[in-house]
Amino acid sequence: MNLEDFISKACIESSTGIRRGDKREETEGIREYILNSKTIVIPNCNDEKVAAVNEVLDELDLPKAGHLNIHTDSCDVSRMPAVTKALMALDMTDADLIIARGRLGVPGSGSMLVIVDCKGRLLSASISPSHHIHGKTVYQAVKDEMTDALSRIGFDISGRE
Amino acid sequence: MNLEDFISKACIESSTGIRRGDKREETEGIREYILNSKTIVIPNCNDEKVAAVNEVLDELDLPKAGHLNIHTDSCDVSRMPAVTKALMALDMTDADLIIARGRLGVPGSGSMLVIVDCKGRLLSASISPSHHIHGKTVYQAVKDEMTDALSRIGFDISGRE
Amino acid sequence: MNLEDFISKACIESSTGIRRGDKREETEGIREYILNSKTIVIPNCNDEKVAAVNEVLDELDLPKAGHLNIHTDSCDVSRMPAVTKALMALDMTDADLIIARGRLGVPGSGSMLVIVDCKGRLLSASISPSHHIHGKTVYQAVKDEMTDALSRIGFDISGRE
Amino acid sequence: MNLEDFISKACIESSTGIRRGDKREETEGIREYILNSKTIVIPNCNDEKVAAVNEVLDELDLPKAGHLNIHTDSCDVSRMPAVTKALMALDMTDADLIIARGRLGVPGSGSMLVIVDCKGRLLSASISPSHHIHGKTVYQAVKDEMTDALSRIGFDISGRE
Repeated sequence: MNLEDFISKACIESSTGIRRGDKREETEGIREYILNSKTIVIPNCNDEKVAAVNEVLDELDLPKAGHLNIHTDSCDVSRMPAVTKALMALDMTDADLIIARGRLGVPGSGSMLVIVDCKGRLLSASISPSHHIHGKTVYQAVKDEMTDALSRIGFDISGRE
Repeated sequence: MNLEDFISKACIESSTGIRRGDKREETEGIREYILNSKTIVIPNCNDEKVAAVNEVLDELDLPKAGHLNIHTDSCDVSRMPAVTKALMALDMTDADLIIARGRLGVPGSGSMLVIVDCKGRLLSASISPSHHIHGKTVYQAVKDEMTDALSRIGFDISGRE
Repeated sequence: MNLEDFISKACIESSTGIRRGDKREETEGIREYILNSKTIVIPNCNDEKVAAVNEVLDELDLPKAGHLNIHTDSCDVSRMPAVTKALMALDMTDADLIIARGRLGVPGSGSMLVIVDCKGRLLSASISPSHHIHGKTVYQAVKDEMTDALSRIGFDISGRE
Repeated sequence: MNLEDFISKACIESSTGIRRGDKREETEGIREYILNSKTIVIPNCNDEKVAAVNEVLDELDLPKAGHLNIHTDSCDVSRMPAVTKALMALDMTDADLIIARGRLGVPGSGSMLVIVDCKGRLLSASISPSHHIHGKTVYQAVKDEMTDALSRIGFDISGRE
């Protein structure tokens, strides 16, 4: 089953009041979509963040994510900058999968990493505190977020030391 | 400084290219907003989830969150159900603070708890795997999410055992 | 040029401050996308509205729009119900083009018809007053909205009598 | 009744399947909200557009809209730039009413003027073709859009010559 079918079924369940939370096969459907991605894009002008994401993708034998070299500061005017960044990259490329990292919400709210598919649907995400709270290097923070975003949907990643 | 001022300053920094991540005072501004909330609302028809959130709010001496008893299944048709649920509650009440929990993204993507202010701005959030992955009780899952959402912006909460 | 290229160029123009409004070729790009659509979907359980849209599509020799028979009342909980309806249909089908009609914003704000592409990008739209203000039949209202949405991006449609 | 009450009632009607379109009193509620606005803000660095909006507001004896002098080009990276612009202004000020004008959707899709309340809810809007299609002066285009946005919710404005 593809995502369209899972979403259609879930929608009918919700509207008839019989939906009882996520199903194993739905999460498996997300993993399959990710594993079948051919073109992965990261909107960012920071090489270190791209390298951190790629280190984790490599564990799943996924293709290296390409670098969409654009200024993403503009996204900070929106209410969910990380999500806006992902949609911006989606609209500018032919990627199957977008991995974007940016501010979660208002200034001071920390960061979010989102994984969206070729239609802009949110497949997984992870969030971190602000740097002034966690104190990690950018590389480690991004690697941990990417690892979390994948392991929470059932991927077995050793990323986090 | 109130949130409007923090956002204005951050916006100017982003547009002039000098923004360098979240500042301590911004995160402090978020905490202050939360601590000053008089009316807190949770859109949900599940008493257990409301009790779990209230147990955590109580640690901060915040007023008990009220129960907005509505069917929130409709929100599942949107792309970010938890966020939609929060905005729906915002639009129907005079709350200062909304705490909503719902699906993160597509079916199978797990759940998100969001904390939004009186204008719908995202102050903090936390995300969990699907129940079929973490296996916690609903009560414990919600309590952990609420604890995470607050501790990641610098609140000292002992919630998670 | 496809939409991805137009959007990339426009984005760079905006971020370097040289953007000066829509270009003829961009609007032409939108028309081309619409004319090349193979699968068109209308999320709605009202045959009359579907017929009204199809009468207009027929003038452009476009394929008849199919009927996605789902309850769309759920979308009314969101802040822009017409847009939510379009994205819901996008997420449930493999359509190239979605034409959705629903409430513009808050209750009482009238209606909006939106045309979105296969990634959920907004290509055109039109808005009408509430029925209690315009007094048209549903068929005529939808036909006029569809005609407006297409003629405002340069299609020559005689739809509106 | 305030907007919160109208929205709550409409939401229950939708979820029980008895909603039958906008009601006169809902649209009247929107007009009342607008007429009671004390602080109106337009996010824009173009004096002419502000003057055009103010000419129309003056007909309703509404206070002059203030100028939020910020670079709004950043909003063009989002999927609905006019809506993003309104929310940005909302987040940076204490306005009761925001009137924002910007691109409707993708580049080439023309423009949209939106009127949002103090919580970011969409009260009314109007949309225009691209300048290369309508050929009006900016002043006349904005005045017509503002007139449309108000007259479609029942205000009696003579604005459009």
